[in-house]
Amino acid sequence: MTAEIICVGTEILLGNIVNTNAAYLSERLASLGISVFFETTVGDNPERLENVIRQGLERSDILILSGGLGPTKDDLTKEIATKACGQELVEDEEALRRLKEYFARSHRNMTENNLKQALVPEDCTVLYNENGTAPGMVIHAKEGKKVVLLPGPPNELLPMFHDQVEPIIKELSSEVLYSDVVKIDCMGESRVAAEIEDLIEKQTNPTVAPYAKLGEVHLRVTAKAVSEDEAKKLVTPITEELYRRFGHKIFTTKEDETLEDVVVDMLSKHHYTIAAAESCTAGMFTARLVNVAGASDVLNESFITYANEAKMKYLGVKEETLNTVGAVSEDTARQMAEGVARQAGSNVGVGITGLAGPGGETPEKKAGLVYIGVSVNGKTKVNKYQLNGNRQKVRETAVCRALTMVRYALVEEFL
Amino acid sequence: MTAEIICVGTEILLGNIVNTNAAYLSERLASLGISVFFETTVGDNPERLENVIRQGLERSDILILSGGLGPTKDDLTKEIATKACGQELVEDEEALRRLKEYFARSHRNMTENNLKQALVPEDCTVLYNENGTAPGMVIHAKEGKKVVLLPGPPNELLPMFHDQVEPIIKELSSEVLYSDVVKIDCMGESRVAAEIEDLIEKQTNPTVAPYAKLGEVHLRVTAKAVSEDEAKKLVTPITEELYRRFGHKIFTTKEDETLEDVVVDMLSKHHYTIAAAESCTAGMFTARLVNVAGASDVLNESFITYANEAKMKYLGVKEETLNTVGAVSEDTARQMAEGVARQAGSNVGVGITGLAGPGGETPEKKAGLVYIGVSVNGKTKVNKYQLNGNRQKVRETAVCRALTMVRYALVEEFL
Repeated sequence: MTAEIICVGTEILLGNIVNTNAAYLSERLASLGISVFFETTVGDNPERLENVIRQGLERSDILILSGGLGPTKDDLTKEIATKACGQELVEDEEALRRLKEYFARSHRNMTENNLKQALVPEDCTVLYNENGTAPGMVIHAKEGKKVVLLPGPPNELLPMFHDQVEPIIKELSSEVLYSDVVKIDCMGESRVAAEIEDLIEKQTNPTVAPYAKLGEVHLRVTAKAVSEDEAKKLVTPITEELYRRFGHKIFTTKEDETLEDVVVDMLSKHHYTIAAAESCTAGMFTARLVNVAGASDVLNESFITYANEAKMKYLGVKEETLNTVGAVSEDTARQMAEGVARQAGSNVGVGITGLAGPGGETPEKKAGLVYIGVSVNGKTKVNKYQLNGNRQKVRETAVCRALTMVRYALVEEFL
Repeated sequence: MTAEIICVGTEILLGNIVNTNAAYLSERLASLGISVFFETTVGDNPERLENVIRQGLERSDILILSGGLGPTKDDLTKEIATKACGQELVEDEEALRRLKEYFARSHRNMTENNLKQALVPEDCTVLYNENGTAPGMVIHAKEGKKVVLLPGPPNELLPMFHDQVEPIIKELSSEVLYSDVVKIDCMGESRVAAEIEDLIEKQTNPTVAPYAKLGEVHLRVTAKAVSEDEAKKLVTPITEELYRRFGHKIFTTKEDETLEDVVVDMLSKHHYTIAAAESCTAGMFTARLVNVAGASDVLNESFITYANEAKMKYLGVKEETLNTVGAVSEDTARQMAEGVARQAGSNVGVGITGLAGPGGETPEKKAGLVYIGVSVNGKTKVNKYQLNGNRQKVRETAVCRALTMVRYALVEEFL
């Protein structure tokens, strides 16, 4: 079964708001095993909206429309959708009763405009709105097709879709979807893709789809079956095969788990603490660890030592090192990592020093040059990276590399 | 002139990512005076993608496609768009040279897959990518239509569109647009909108459009005219009127200038230094200052004092304070701000302590409670905020509030 999402609203086309409804609906539909092939955003224009609905009715089984159900003249979704389905609007008694009650409760006067919110297409299931005045509806269109109309505000749309629309869709569908998301943190997308070409080639059910994220590659392994258990049975052998190929390069297979979650979790399980000395990243590494709600178990303090003086004063980086090989060097990164672990009394120390650019370049040291030191109980490793991109990208990528280095060092430590 | 946006990627249709590219492109196109009537998202499927492109070529002057330019077999946008425009792919020497250089610089091996990234349609302008391997392109299609292909990652798409595509679009249009972006950092969108209702009502040319950003409201004042000078003459009186209404609440009217740019610039001009002591934000405030390439002029060091011990050890926060009113309190924020200025020998000290949640709440202290102290040459102010949203949103908003407090303190200091 296929669905398509149609978001109605000129404010989306003007870029005033980010379309989070589409992402929410997409994810929910995917989890219900419904294929979404198109998402369209169209303004509050009767002709263009009608064309988009008619096109959708030709190519998809379910249309999900959001927005344009309000009381103003701009709000046309219900009128146009009813017309496109060849139906007429009729008054819904229960909708009218709820509307009157809503206004009485909030001590506001009901305008003529609001009355149109009690009109619904003749053959539909009305979805009553617990969080606003506009009811939603599922129009029963020709050939068993469904046209679902939802209010635009996310706090009205989300519960209405989840509580009232999902049960209707589940009844229409006989299949369930299950996914593992295999996340790899130290290979580029093209190298990962090259190593799984055979799996991608022969895929039908399950499918394997690679996505590149900053510093990570995600492989989504998805299967359809009659039940979640059956779908999982199809996914698991592929995930196991990916573990055989990538081993420790995989840091999780859980949709919601991040690289920092995994690092904080490893530290926490072994009662290890961590501290960082950050120069070019200036706090971004530590801020990412603190994304994790349980970070206080493993992190007490970190230092942002942007100036050379601060590197000497707090971390004991040697003046001679800074004067000879410079602040952006293997030696400095090593001394920062070891110095911060000593100063903070932590098991793990991380030192990050680099040239994010623009400016400050020399013939030997180009923008993007970053040294990262990771010291675990006095055993220190320093990596040199020449990273691509602008100032922000270099700094964000450096944080990813540092997290990966810490994860690897911990894998070895706890082996 | 009309444009339509086509985002390519199954990961969007699966709801794995929120489509922020569409919002960015919409806003930029609106600011260029280009009407966007449709946005479509389609998966990595050759047939459906081709249909969407052909439909777009029939109804719009400019198509902007994002995503699907990567090196893997899934990435089909270039191939399909070239075909839909009736062109062939040819090798671009410069693209190939850059690709080889990119891999040489990052000491990675180039795979066969990567080579296809040097192919471009025969009649196009190539857009070289400073932040990734995939070049973008503007295909010169029939009847003067343009098909713009952009890489999907926002850090590649944004600068490429801004620096390389916007000048091309501007040349296509006979009218010139000029905008001031009046940025306000300490009022909510609805309050700002209420104060300029009369300006919005009577607008035709120039127009005033409000956009809410995290911690900021931007008012884009835009005029169309035959030349930039003429357009500017229409915009300036409105911008001046906004200054009369909002005064110091406006921190810039420049499109590219950020709040951290303004703060670093003010500090730098007066040879002032700044240091921060961060608890819940854990480095995010300092990292934002270091977004500015000249931050080393004003920042030497900062402390991430997540644990109480660290607050006492480095900042001199009193044990009694922590034991009585607690770490998330006005007194602690004040002692952090003053302590870090003393420790770092800086003119300005910033202390941020809060409860980002989830967990750790008490009946008196709910998640979202943040105290921010700003001390300028020993004169300290502490504000209390009860912020909305999840852990990330609370921390990001706290950083915005801290930057605004520093800016206000400096405005007073230098008055």
